[in-house]
Amino acid sequence: MTSTVSSTDLTGQMLIAGTAVHGTGAEIRGFDPTRGAELEPAYRHGEASHVEAACAAAAEAFHAYRATSSDQRARFLEGIADNIAAITDDLVHRAHAETGLPEARLTGEVGRTTGQLRLFASVLREGSWNGARIDTAQPDRTPLPRPDLRQRMVPLGPVAVFGASNFPLAFSVAGGDTASALAAGCPVVVKAHDAHPGTSELVGRAICAAVADAGLPPGTFSLLYIPGPGLGTALVTDPRIKAVGFTGSRAGGLALVAAAAARPEPIPVYAEMSSINPVFLLGGALAGRGAEIGRAFVGSLTMGSGQFCTNPGLVIAIDSPGLDAFTAAAAEALSASAPTAMLTPDIADNYRAGVDALSGEATLVARGSADGDAAVSCRAALFSTDAAGLLGSKSLQAEVFGASSLIVRCADLDEMKTVAANLEGQLTATLHIDDSDVAHAGELLPILELKAGRILFNGWPTGVEVCHAMVHGGPFPATSDSRTTSVGSRAIDRFLRPVCYQDAPKSLVPSAIADDNPDRLWRRVDGELTKD
Amino acid sequence: MTSTVSSTDLTGQMLIAGTAVHGTGAEIRGFDPTRGAELEPAYRHGEASHVEAACAAAAEAFHAYRATSSDQRARFLEGIADNIAAITDDLVHRAHAETGLPEARLTGEVGRTTGQLRLFASVLREGSWNGARIDTAQPDRTPLPRPDLRQRMVPLGPVAVFGASNFPLAFSVAGGDTASALAAGCPVVVKAHDAHPGTSELVGRAICAAVADAGLPPGTFSLLYIPGPGLGTALVTDPRIKAVGFTGSRAGGLALVAAAAARPEPIPVYAEMSSINPVFLLGGALAGRGAEIGRAFVGSLTMGSGQFCTNPGLVIAIDSPGLDAFTAAAAEALSASAPTAMLTPDIADNYRAGVDALSGEATLVARGSADGDAAVSCRAALFSTDAAGLLGSKSLQAEVFGASSLIVRCADLDEMKTVAANLEGQLTATLHIDDSDVAHAGELLPILELKAGRILFNGWPTGVEVCHAMVHGGPFPATSDSRTTSVGSRAIDRFLRPVCYQDAPKSLVPSAIADDNPDRLWRRVDGELTKD
Repeated sequence: MTSTVSSTDLTGQMLIAGTAVHGTGAEIRGFDPTRGAELEPAYRHGEASHVEAACAAAAEAFHAYRATSSDQRARFLEGIADNIAAITDDLVHRAHAETGLPEARLTGEVGRTTGQLRLFASVLREGSWNGARIDTAQPDRTPLPRPDLRQRMVPLGPVAVFGASNFPLAFSVAGGDTASALAAGCPVVVKAHDAHPGTSELVGRAICAAVADAGLPPGTFSLLYIPGPGLGTALVTDPRIKAVGFTGSRAGGLALVAAAAARPEPIPVYAEMSSINPVFLLGGALAGRGAEIGRAFVGSLTMGSGQFCTNPGLVIAIDSPGLDAFTAAAAEALSASAPTAMLTPDIADNYRAGVDALSGEATLVARGSADGDAAVSCRAALFSTDAAGLLGSKSLQAEVFGASSLIVRCADLDEMKTVAANLEGQLTATLHIDDSDVAHAGELLPILELKAGRILFNGWPTGVEVCHAMVHGGPFPATSDSRTTSVGSRAIDRFLRPVCYQDAPKSLVPSAIADDNPDRLWRRVDGELTKD
Repeated sequence: MTSTVSSTDLTGQMLIAGTAVHGTGAEIRGFDPTRGAELEPAYRHGEASHVEAACAAAAEAFHAYRATSSDQRARFLEGIADNIAAITDDLVHRAHAETGLPEARLTGEVGRTTGQLRLFASVLREGSWNGARIDTAQPDRTPLPRPDLRQRMVPLGPVAVFGASNFPLAFSVAGGDTASALAAGCPVVVKAHDAHPGTSELVGRAICAAVADAGLPPGTFSLLYIPGPGLGTALVTDPRIKAVGFTGSRAGGLALVAAAAARPEPIPVYAEMSSINPVFLLGGALAGRGAEIGRAFVGSLTMGSGQFCTNPGLVIAIDSPGLDAFTAAAAEALSASAPTAMLTPDIADNYRAGVDALSGEATLVARGSADGDAAVSCRAALFSTDAAGLLGSKSLQAEVFGASSLIVRCADLDEMKTVAANLEGQLTATLHIDDSDVAHAGELLPILELKAGRILFNGWPTGVEVCHAMVHGGPFPATSDSRTTSVGSRAIDRFLRPVCYQDAPKSLVPSAIADDNPDRLWRRVDGELTKD
């Protein structure tokens, strides 16, 4: 491949430090779930030597890459965004074929992906990511003088990113993990998700072209097609990898967490795994607009075949006529919903198994229309139970990836609080309230703050804004590290660590913490934030 | 015990949520290493039910404690500091008896301990710990409106703190881990170090009195005497504990990390473990003042019997006449140094074993004076080897806790860089340089930034300033989590996680992120830092 290629002609090759390489293992192909057809070209899984080569190149690239300025990395990220934007039509076309997701949604996802890259470019230029702190020397202090101490953040090292199936762009090859790691100064080795190999290649080529255009070391980025359990673990346990970003299943995430913890040098794993995103319906809201909320709920539940980390899989509601109205309206809307394609046959199989498991433990309220149901489609499902039913069952809290949800009828606020207190960690918790519910919501809020990364009022958890205040994270098992977010500008912090310089000579002090603030950063000087 | 007791009359009891409780297990006693005598009173280890009771009380206290305002917690921390300062003489007397550390050093350590508490009070009042971020709503945005999104930090939950042996005050019951966790809004359960039970009781009583004075739930703080491997693990694996602070050995820290990772809900462990704190001596500095550096080095090495996490255990130097002068001066100073008491007989035994192990692999340069050497004393030791010797041996990089160090002779800068690149993670790295060495130091610096949490120039790593820019942390195995520091104001971040509030009604928005900034905080509003 030449360094400037950004072709839409797929070659079926991995991209190892700027070089296109054919795999030698099992053949994988994109699969069109709408047409039930395999797609050209064939890809082949790589082997251990490819993982090794990508990690070696990343380690070699790290020293030059981390020495780039914030502005150089910002321009690099913008270059990636430009290259991706330039092939929007091809990307949307291929991603639609590989995932069955609607083209309008995928067009939006291209915009979100380029928007994330540009957000991190702005974060780099703003500069607070440096975490600059200066405590000035006090040579005359007694009994001991205070030295000059300066702190800034440095990147951890090469990062392994595992692309997700359900966002083939925004959580995949150039998704939030890659963008934030590259912004931090970390080279990235991506394991492409087998569900969208062509989309991955297109995006990978867009990144490689930006690497070349920016004059960066080619090892700054590699894209691998490798079998998950085996070589995914090899990637995570390679000693040159210093952090991992993952979005996927609980089992997959926990396996990577365990592998990383068992390394001679353990490393952080940011795994975004499993969440059923409880929605709390309070009495006033239900009484005033139960049916309306029910219809909107089904819209959130069935969007994208329910294949969202933030899909509302649990509804916890005050048993009341308003809940009956909610349930009736939801059942009506859901029954009218047509089956929609799921991302892969495996995901569809797992969805059906999950719905079958719920059927054994909860009461079926409604299923989506059977008209046009196919092997790879999602036929939405809604169940109900009571608080005792939920609290007495472990499996009712398990995530069913797809458009399935469970209504939990609670006698009163106390029962609702008990259910909330017994939930596992979640990405989101949502409350639907009216003015009359505010006091009750105030009693739920302290419980939910300890259970979820984001708390929404009178909205739906699907749709994650990419901004500064977003938290797409949450207590275990929603993620493996609740102290962070994988969406929004704070995500860069995951790949940084602080270093303190004591009495460093002026010529060796990094510019972020140099005298006279040459980079014009917000810095904490003797405890006070200042730009001086 | 009454709630206002701050007595210096030791009772030999644990303090579980404000109640003094006798243990029922093995007897432990303070031991005076200077006199070789056991101290009154006897303490007894607690059992599992005591761990359970402390964790239950902490979980119960958490809800009320985290609801306190920043100012309430600041006044509480100042109350602890006042109570500790009021018993300085008793504390210094008892701690000297239990550790053999000089009274002047312990007086300073009381000041450091109260200073840390007051620093976190100021951090609470300054308020940036809230991590307040607001992205304002854009109701007219197309294709989708942007909701109102606000982010702040919330505490993780009850924290288990393991006191260290070598700082009976500043890294123990009311040390940096306790101060930062309490500041974050987390109740604390301390496992006292068996080496200073009386000092621990005195400090524990000072905290309990402050808890009562502040009207806080008694479960906000508990002090346990429990056997490490068994009930220490029980404490870490109690489901109500949400984070762990530890300072101690590599084996002890790794055991807690493994126990925490194996929980059904894994939790973060901040273990500060093992570091040999390499000191790099460059050619110009050695040529100009080799002997002077050698004498100063021995001062840092032998201070406090070398029982510091930041003790300079490795000297990497350019082989030269200046290094000969350094070595001769160091050998002379070290040979004249008298044996000094170590903290405990076990630590002294381990020191001797570590020195014996070094003797088999490196060349002895000098030993401290044998005059007055005793079973519990440290007789300083200095060894030397060459770069090949260090790189070829795993055991030469193992920490010897105490006044032992190893000089590594390097032929040139390249060999020095190779040694640096092959070091394990460290708390500190130090360079001694003159103007003529700056270019060489600039080549070492990027390597050392990836190896150490703090990089010093022309100083000594012992002595850790408590301030905003300090990093007392570093890559594994120096700590289990290089993204943090256990000393300085940034330590509070270890016990916090972000929560995002989407479209929350005004009456439910926490004050840190409320409209009109009632707490007068620095906040990131639409990406810009502002106090408006």
